Amino acid sequence: MDKKQLKTTQISTIGEFGLINQIASKFSLKNPSSLLGIGDDAAVIDIGNGKVQLVSTDILAEHIHFDLSFMPLMHLGYKAIAVNVSDIAAMNALAQQVTVSIALSSRFTVEAVDELYEGIKLACEDYKVDLVGGDTTSSASGLVISVSVLGIANKDQLSYRNGAQVGDIICVTGDLGAAYLGLKVLQREKEVFMGNPEMQPELTGFEYAIRRQLKPSARMDIIHDLAESKVIPTSMIDISDGLASELLHICKQSQVGAIITEENIPIDTDVYNSFVEFNMQPITAAINGGEDYELLFTLNAKDYEKISKHPDVAGIGLIKPKDDGVFLLSKQGNKYPIQAQGWNHFS
Amino acid sequence: MDKKQLKTTQISTIGEFGLINQIASKFSLKNPSSLLGIGDDAAVIDIGNGKVQLVSTDILAEHIHFDLSFMPLMHLGYKAIAVNVSDIAAMNALAQQVTVSIALSSRFTVEAVDELYEGIKLACEDYKVDLVGGDTTSSASGLVISVSVLGIANKDQLSYRNGAQVGDIICVTGDLGAAYLGLKVLQREKEVFMGNPEMQPELTGFEYAIRRQLKPSARMDIIHDLAESKVIPTSMIDISDGLASELLHICKQSQVGAIITEENIPIDTDVYNSFVEFNMQPITAAINGGEDYELLFTLNAKDYEKISKHPDVAGIGLIKPKDDGVFLLSKQGNKYPIQAQGWNHFS
Repeated sequence: MDKKQLKTTQISTIGEFGLINQIASKFSLKNPSSLLGIGDDAAVIDIGNGKVQLVSTDILAEHIHFDLSFMPLMHLGYKAIAVNVSDIAAMNALAQQVTVSIALSSRFTVEAVDELYEGIKLACEDYKVDLVGGDTTSSASGLVISVSVLGIANKDQLSYRNGAQVGDIICVTGDLGAAYLGLKVLQREKEVFMGNPEMQPELTGFEYAIRRQLKPSARMDIIHDLAESKVIPTSMIDISDGLASELLHICKQSQVGAIITEENIPIDTDVYNSFVEFNMQPITAAINGGEDYELLFTLNAKDYEKISKHPDVAGIGLIKPKDDGVFLLSKQGNKYPIQAQGWNHFS
Repeated sequence: MDKKQLKTTQISTIGEFGLINQIASKFSLKNPSSLLGIGDDAAVIDIGNGKVQLVSTDILAEHIHFDLSFMPLMHLGYKAIAVNVSDIAAMNALAQQVTVSIALSSRFTVEAVDELYEGIKLACEDYKVDLVGGDTTSSASGLVISVSVLGIANKDQLSYRNGAQVGDIICVTGDLGAAYLGLKVLQREKEVFMGNPEMQPELTGFEYAIRRQLKPSARMDIIHDLAESKVIPTSMIDISDGLASELLHICKQSQVGAIITEENIPIDTDVYNSFVEFNMQPITAAINGGEDYELLFTLNAKDYEKISKHPDVAGIGLIKPKDDGVFLLSKQGNKYPIQAQGWNHFS
């Protein structure tokens, strides 16, 4: 009898990162052009003359990543492109091409697919990327969207997750937590609607949070601004799973510790107040809520000076030696260890 | 009221190709590096110095593309890579990297995922490609695998679908129809098993056909042989949907006609006999059955001479002027128009 068939381990016991680590451990890179494989925001492929091709891919599944009862298909299409472009931005590079594959059940009409691709087109225009390929098929149930994105960069301009140095300034773009608040509001209104379909959704006052959830932006503007300031982050990652989780990735891969200060974490005032109203701790929601698609990066002090006045970049902490651990310094002056809550799609 | 919501068109009414054409018509290429988008086996991206990056992507959905009741996960993993590598081969180029994304329901265990990736690894080794990235997520139901593949080539070595010239020799590699026979045998045995689970499957005599269905090969060997013979096909495509459908793609995109001769279409003898036993016309099954992943290409007469003795390449016909149409010449000397049956995943 085959021993392998005797053992059955639920994926939830090792989680998404455990699964990825297990897969990655089986594979090694053999082609000389494969410079970097699994483990950063994008893979890096040498194309000669000091240039590299970046490639990243994301898969979005209905009921797991999106709920079509409150996510219009056009927004979903836009978001699918934006989150992939964001992965290339997180390498300090510009995306140029995408491929989009969809598997969809028979409940989707031609008009529904049109709407999805309208959103994809809008994002392609916003981020100056070309749709160059894809695949379409039916599925037994639901909608799955798989996007791959390509970008070209100079090899020496890339920012990896593993380059943070002790003493570097930790920076974050935009503000955090709004996309998570948007999700909570949409889920709440859906529940109200399910209980009483006569009720109109109450979304007034949450426009910003909902927009952040439904139509996130990839921060390509920051990549341009960094290039103009001639600044190359020593490390970078995009915030898809929450600041806490992403900072831990950088610290682990760079073999450093970090301290971030609560008072410097950028949270929109209305978003902050809404978290309080919802009986949620704003700082906890802001650093653990995912899907902001802002950039988290580290700069050496000299480079930080060059962009410290950027209205959309906040210095939030310092890279420390590894043994110092990874902490949040609260407004009251208490130190809390940062733990990854993140998103576990298998929990 | 939104007019768009009033119209609902089933995707089956326009089919997979209709859907792809509708999507493609919305998008144009804007980045100078995007040389070719949707419409060939792979997209072509200029990376300078006369070199191009090729990218292609395929999505495989459970119950649509594969049936895990007779498709072992290891074979599925192998096949997912092979069919993508085949798309790069069909451009006359070599694949170098792949990304693999999976969405899977909670019925899949860690051991099942391991088995899938064992097959992926085996294919990566066989085709000398590196797994450089991917994504994993849960799904509401079933398994979806999305693979993207990258390859580098010299720009002037590529074979497109639109380059066939009147007078070119039409060639095909290997033999045709076996993968389709393998599918039919597996489906038959599954039905027998469903009717009476005590029955043992009768697969003896069908080993070749079943292997062709479960573990197809991408013909990278042919790409090497063509390069060694210094031959560049004037057009090329891989046979995923059946010879008839693929030949029509080449003819349509090259704006030519064609005639292929029944007696030259390569069919394995055992496969031929099995089709007869199954009351199926062998030639019809061979040119319409999909998933052989052989290469269909055209050569000018001088180049054809250089490889006419290749044991695994058959000259099967001639490219004709467009107005001549696309025909099969039967052994009895009758001409039959070739029509695309192919695979319509939305029918």
